[in-house]
Amino acid sequence: MNFRILAKVLGLLLLLLSVSMASCGIFAKLDSVAGDHEAMVALFTSAAITAFVGTILVLGGLGKIERIPRREGVMIVGLGWVLSSIFGSLPFIICPPHLTWGSAFFETASGITTTGSTVIGDLSQWPRGILLWRSVTQWLGGVGILVLFVAVLSYLGVGTKSLFRNESSFQSGEATTARIRDTALTLWKIYAGLTVICALGLRGMGMTWYHAISHSMTAVSTGGFSPHNASVGFYSAWGNSALIEFWLSLFMLICSLNFLIIAVILSKKWQRIRSEDDAKWFFGICLFVALGIAAGLTLDPRYSVDFWQAFRESWFIVISIASTTGFGTVDYGLWPAWCKALLAILMVIGGCSGSTAGGMKVSRFLVFLKSSAHEVIRAFRPNQVFRLVVNGNPMDDDARARTTSFVALYLLIIALGSVVVGILEAGVGIDLETCLGAVLATLSNIGPGFGALGPTSNFADLREVTQVFLAGLMILGRLELFAILVLFVPAAWKRF
Amino acid sequence: MNFRILAKVLGLLLLLLSVSMASCGIFAKLDSVAGDHEAMVALFTSAAITAFVGTILVLGGLGKIERIPRREGVMIVGLGWVLSSIFGSLPFIICPPHLTWGSAFFETASGITTTGSTVIGDLSQWPRGILLWRSVTQWLGGVGILVLFVAVLSYLGVGTKSLFRNESSFQSGEATTARIRDTALTLWKIYAGLTVICALGLRGMGMTWYHAISHSMTAVSTGGFSPHNASVGFYSAWGNSALIEFWLSLFMLICSLNFLIIAVILSKKWQRIRSEDDAKWFFGICLFVALGIAAGLTLDPRYSVDFWQAFRESWFIVISIASTTGFGTVDYGLWPAWCKALLAILMVIGGCSGSTAGGMKVSRFLVFLKSSAHEVIRAFRPNQVFRLVVNGNPMDDDARARTTSFVALYLLIIALGSVVVGILEAGVGIDLETCLGAVLATLSNIGPGFGALGPTSNFADLREVTQVFLAGLMILGRLELFAILVLFVPAAWKRF
Ligand SMILES: [K+]
Ligand SMILES: [K+]
Repeated sequence: MNFRILAKVLGLLLLLLSVSMASCGIFAKLDSVAGDHEAMVALFTSAAITAFVGTILVLGGLGKIERIPRREGVMIVGLGWVLSSIFGSLPFIICPPHLTWGSAFFETASGITTTGSTVIGDLSQWPRGILLWRSVTQWLGGVGILVLFVAVLSYLGVGTKSLFRNESSFQSGEATTARIRDTALTLWKIYAGLTVICALGLRGMGMTWYHAISHSMTAVSTGGFSPHNASVGFYSAWGNSALIEFWLSLFMLICSLNFLIIAVILSKKWQRIRSEDDAKWFFGICLFVALGIAAGLTLDPRYSVDFWQAFRESWFIVISIASTTGFGTVDYGLWPAWCKALLAILMVIGGCSGSTAGGMKVSRFLVFLKSSAHEVIRAFRPNQVFRLVVNGNPMDDDARARTTSFVALYLLIIALGSVVVGILEAGVGIDLETCLGAVLATLSNIGPGFGALGPTSNFADLREVTQVFLAGLMILGRLELFAILVLFVPAAWKRF
Repeated sequence: MNFRILAKVLGLLLLLLSVSMASCGIFAKLDSVAGDHEAMVALFTSAAITAFVGTILVLGGLGKIERIPRREGVMIVGLGWVLSSIFGSLPFIICPPHLTWGSAFFETASGITTTGSTVIGDLSQWPRGILLWRSVTQWLGGVGILVLFVAVLSYLGVGTKSLFRNESSFQSGEATTARIRDTALTLWKIYAGLTVICALGLRGMGMTWYHAISHSMTAVSTGGFSPHNASVGFYSAWGNSALIEFWLSLFMLICSLNFLIIAVILSKKWQRIRSEDDAKWFFGICLFVALGIAAGLTLDPRYSVDFWQAFRESWFIVISIASTTGFGTVDYGLWPAWCKALLAILMVIGGCSGSTAGGMKVSRFLVFLKSSAHEVIRAFRPNQVFRLVVNGNPMDDDARARTTSFVALYLLIIALGSVVVGILEAGVGIDLETCLGAVLATLSNIGPGFGALGPTSNFADLREVTQVFLAGLMILGRLELFAILVLFVPAAWKRF
């Protein structure tokens, strides 16, 4: 392990974090709403502490870095998300009404990982500057995952590598550092552009700049934090609430697609979408589930809604869940069990690789589905040759085994995570649905869960140790398991 | 598709079923307890109908069968279990107090698949002859799965094939028909022997012959039907209840192990158990979970039990669930959520391949665990060569992909099955835990589920269509998915 590289890169990360905090501090300073003095102090203090530690790390790791070896890269990713969550939590700890250390870590990890679960029961008790920082953590988390996708996941494998190979811009041999930087910059531009367009639209629909930008940042990052206690449901009293919901659902949908493909399409190669199984399946599944739930709610005598009202509600919730954003309008906790089970499946699947969405990713789900379908055929045609193609890329047996392994591991972590949550919360009568919902909501970076942790509730009543455990699951899920699991392998830490 | 082969083999199967029914009819005739005249009539009538249809099929398929081709073999297995469940349900339909067609199919499928879920709320309303038939279906189902393991699953693959290869008795080239018959006979002898020993023990502990044989047949088949409403909990008032529970847990445990390995060990090759990862892991997991739950219950202030009482309770329930038997003593529905989540994981894993137990099987779980562990290592050591060995057999990438695919498919079916149960039961306020429990209990051939379908309850309140769906899941799970899924592939039916 080359600790010099680790120190330098992580130090730079903290400096970036510090600048972002200071920017929110400036907003708090300029903001006319009362009570933001405390927010400003908290944000500047946090920025100073973070900058101090970041500077020490950078100085400790001075020197030119030619390239980051694989093992160091994996470690940087895991530690980067953990450190960001620790230092990013300072404003919540310093500013009244104060969060405890564990809760603040949960809230920040929930931001940095674009999860959106919250331990804050009443957001109106917190100054706007802090809530802006809360939204900014999600936006930064979204940038982080896109850069990570380009720079690290490209050689981490599991379904993302093959995607790279097929893009014409990556056809010519190995991806060089310059090429990686260019690609990351392109994706960042798309991300920033989408944020601006979304915010302008929301502003046009009558939101204040503050609310428009807050919701825009957490929509394109599929984060789902809102400065309102009622989330997007706050706007349901407005005359144009349907438009606001549609606008947000549009951006949640776009940002669940592979940003590399968006880049290709933006360069006028429209036909590229045709070979993009991910996007087609993602959209198809969302539409199918939304229509199914709408039909079910219309037919169910306990829900007296007409079909279009039901579809409007189910569409927003389905997109919000499938994109792993977690914005809330209606309380899906009141829907029948089968609707919740469908939402749980969407939570597991998540969005497309290369998006800001979480979950185990559509492409893995496709590999697994196609692989399973073949096994059925092979039961009576044992010698049939099996050629697995996803997004136009053929996969060999090893890649197939790795992907299905990932799917099964993901599901095992959900099951074991539920056990741990149940053990940590033992004695308070937590039910199985709530345990499962808590793990799904955090591991897949959704936000709201089921049962006592449903969309109208929050994670404040959990024990602090449970909150920290769930925060760990957020990071584990956000980094697609391996970058975090590696941290627990002693051999990975060995200096060589 | 060669329909002649299908007709002949399925016809012989029905004749065997008919003989078994008639035997129960003779018991009903000889039994001194009142009201068994109706049972006798029902059983003889059912035997006659079944024998009639079976004879027609056999006549339709006359001629010598050299060998059963793979495709026909798979079809016979799927249809065999379905037909047995249909014809085996006749006694429940004919005999008062009568079950409806759907419920009778559920009850019989639950028997034939050794599941043990029941739609009969009060067993005391049914004559002993019918309840004996109910237990016999499980015992026959256990024979069936052992024969199937030897004769068909050997070339169906997915983890069982490699096991065969390694056994010295199968080393010499291909398994001939004679060898398959010999092996099947050996396993049947072990199975019958275990049944006799178990029954003698129970008789010695004070049960009547009727109850001893009933419980013995459903213990060694890991079926779990009991003629008592309170299941094995009926005996908790007895002074030697601990001994009865231990005796039953011993046979449930043995019958969750690979019968081929039991055969090898019985031929004095004790050292063979050393390379048997399945058995070691199965026992280890059971002991670990039982100790964990016992400790948890002892420490939990809401359960005032001492450790040994708690361990006695948790040991029996854990073995009962892990072996997929489903005998009940205490109501695990009252345990904390994390205990239920652990039991749910045991339900998914199930017993060892080649046993009478259900679930996705320990060996698949091991392949998946080892495969996942390697992926973590490979995140930073991409070029490390991965050699996967389970039960002393190396597995290639294809076998690994197929196994992990199976694991993921199994879990997907659990998720989608829960959705379907929720939809079918919509409008009656069924909760997510109950939906999930119903699918787990049936797909893994456990018996009791969670929530409203827990160990003290039954499946009688479900709609008939839900019961038929769950019966389908039992057969799907019992035949390890593929033999049933194949029935839905049009190409498999094509005559060639
Ligand atoms: K989210
Ligand atoms: K069972």
